[in-house]
Amino acid sequence: MGDSAGIGPEITAKAWKARDLHSLACFFAVGDPRAVRQVWDGPVVPIRSPDEAEAAFDEGLPVLSVGAGGAVTPGTPDVEGARAALESLELATGLTRSGAASGLVTGPVSKAQLYAIGFTHPGQTEFVAERCGVSGDNAVMMLAGPTLRVVPITIHVPLAEVPGLLSQELILAKARVTARGLLRNFGIERPRLAFAGLNPHAGEGGALGREEIEILAPAIAQLRAEGIDAVGPFAADTMFHARARAGYDVALCPYHDQALVPIKTLHFDDGVNTTLGLPIVRTSPDHGTAFGIAGRDEANPGAMIAAIRMAAQQAARRADNAAAGAA
Amino acid sequence: MGDSAGIGPEITAKAWKARDLHSLACFFAVGDPRAVRQVWDGPVVPIRSPDEAEAAFDEGLPVLSVGAGGAVTPGTPDVEGARAALESLELATGLTRSGAASGLVTGPVSKAQLYAIGFTHPGQTEFVAERCGVSGDNAVMMLAGPTLRVVPITIHVPLAEVPGLLSQELILAKARVTARGLLRNFGIERPRLAFAGLNPHAGEGGALGREEIEILAPAIAQLRAEGIDAVGPFAADTMFHARARAGYDVALCPYHDQALVPIKTLHFDDGVNTTLGLPIVRTSPDHGTAFGIAGRDEANPGAMIAAIRMAAQQAARRADNAAAGAA
Repeated sequence: MGDSAGIGPEITAKAWKARDLHSLACFFAVGDPRAVRQVWDGPVVPIRSPDEAEAAFDEGLPVLSVGAGGAVTPGTPDVEGARAALESLELATGLTRSGAASGLVTGPVSKAQLYAIGFTHPGQTEFVAERCGVSGDNAVMMLAGPTLRVVPITIHVPLAEVPGLLSQELILAKARVTARGLLRNFGIERPRLAFAGLNPHAGEGGALGREEIEILAPAIAQLRAEGIDAVGPFAADTMFHARARAGYDVALCPYHDQALVPIKTLHFDDGVNTTLGLPIVRTSPDHGTAFGIAGRDEANPGAMIAAIRMAAQQAARRADNAAAGAA
Repeated sequence: MGDSAGIGPEITAKAWKARDLHSLACFFAVGDPRAVRQVWDGPVVPIRSPDEAEAAFDEGLPVLSVGAGGAVTPGTPDVEGARAALESLELATGLTRSGAASGLVTGPVSKAQLYAIGFTHPGQTEFVAERCGVSGDNAVMMLAGPTLRVVPITIHVPLAEVPGLLSQELILAKARVTARGLLRNFGIERPRLAFAGLNPHAGEGGALGREEIEILAPAIAQLRAEGIDAVGPFAADTMFHARARAGYDVALCPYHDQALVPIKTLHFDDGVNTTLGLPIVRTSPDHGTAFGIAGRDEANPGAMIAAIRMAAQQAARRADNAAAGAA
């Protein structure tokens, strides 16, 4: 459920309430049950292990309890909320790794609070990847909404460092994981990967920068040689209108804002963050803790519902793959 | 009409055809009338001076002829088309400067073709600014659609150069012109300017870059001290969804793609490029020559219609200002 003082508990409970409307598969929450009860009047069913979730799911939100520490004040983050977030992340990751859960959905956390309790990973994605034994370049963050999927090739780095970090090796690693992930987790047989250029107008033939010619184009050629349907680099500004989006399955962008601006412009309320390249299924609502509205019953559960639905779909796809011997 | 071989002539003619539907004010084209006749069966009325346009406008598209050079082949750019584009730009700018026209709408040009005939300006905006005696930093490119206006603070430069170019002086110059232009040309009494950060998450308190702390925040404080309603810097990725857009009149973004990705994602078919800070009104459809579809009757005139309508609105606003002694 992420940070106990954020909107994670509220949107988890609201997702349970909307389970029939959205045909959600059975899920259970991992976190502090008091955090839910403080912001929600509906039924909460404490469970002691994942195998109790199925029976409990019809009666109320099943919660596997962790972090029974100090009091929770919605909207007021503290180290207790961060400890609950980290402990529940650790437990939920382990349960998914073990097969006791089919997929992991992570709620929003406060990085500042996590850092205060000694968390050393850049974010939950890197933590989960490490627990799964996957290196950073091979765990790919993809943001997905109903009409667009994007992958930022570099992520949480200052803009000035982006040109120096963009390499053929990095592009190839991210693209290969993306193509494989779209096949395995989304069932897209021959995913179409479209690359954005680094520079305005994709460098305009070299006049506005040479990274397209020297780095992106050779990497794209290499991917095509490997049988991956990769195209570009294209001018980023004309890649994301409706007709352009119809031409690819995922847009890979050299840096954070190029990818996250269009996805959040189009799908602010129903965007899902998913990690490709892991041995487990992992999704997350694509928004933060929203401490400013926590506890006011104002949080929109759309992205959490979408994250739960996508996790179930990916898990079903991977189960099919396994049954068909294709995984 | 821009390049004769591009879609400029076609969308100009289509805008005339849709004049009643969109309540367009009287306009006349400047360019090669043959370029229109090649792609359109409707009536063309040659005029010899702007004062003939009003009478001609009911009968057909009034065209003030320039560039009667070689043959025009839609979709096949050549130097003749570029010469017609440059000659018509020069003439139309002069007519607007002189008051013979109330506003200037520039059609799409091919920069590659213009450079081939010795054009030395980065684009039409800089050419028009120079002819109006306005320096580059004081001519501000704003992209405007029905739900969003954006100003890129740096424009056509390699991404690697952006951090070095971003200065308080540049931000202040662009912001002052933007605030004044929204008042004078759009009638927005106290325009709300929202700034995007340069780095992901607007630098996250310095962890992902310090330009927000060292450059953007002091510039925004200075603008506020001058009485301009400036806020930010904000994380770019959460600035452009519908609820966020309601909070400001214009978003100022440190670099090209941050501004142009959201506007073209949302308003690809009806975005207008307008130049603030000039003594004249100037707008342009926010797209290129589209040589690939020129001559096929496939071009969408939406952005040209929006550009003509916005030019008329800005001109009317400035006439009101002048009448009220406020200009």
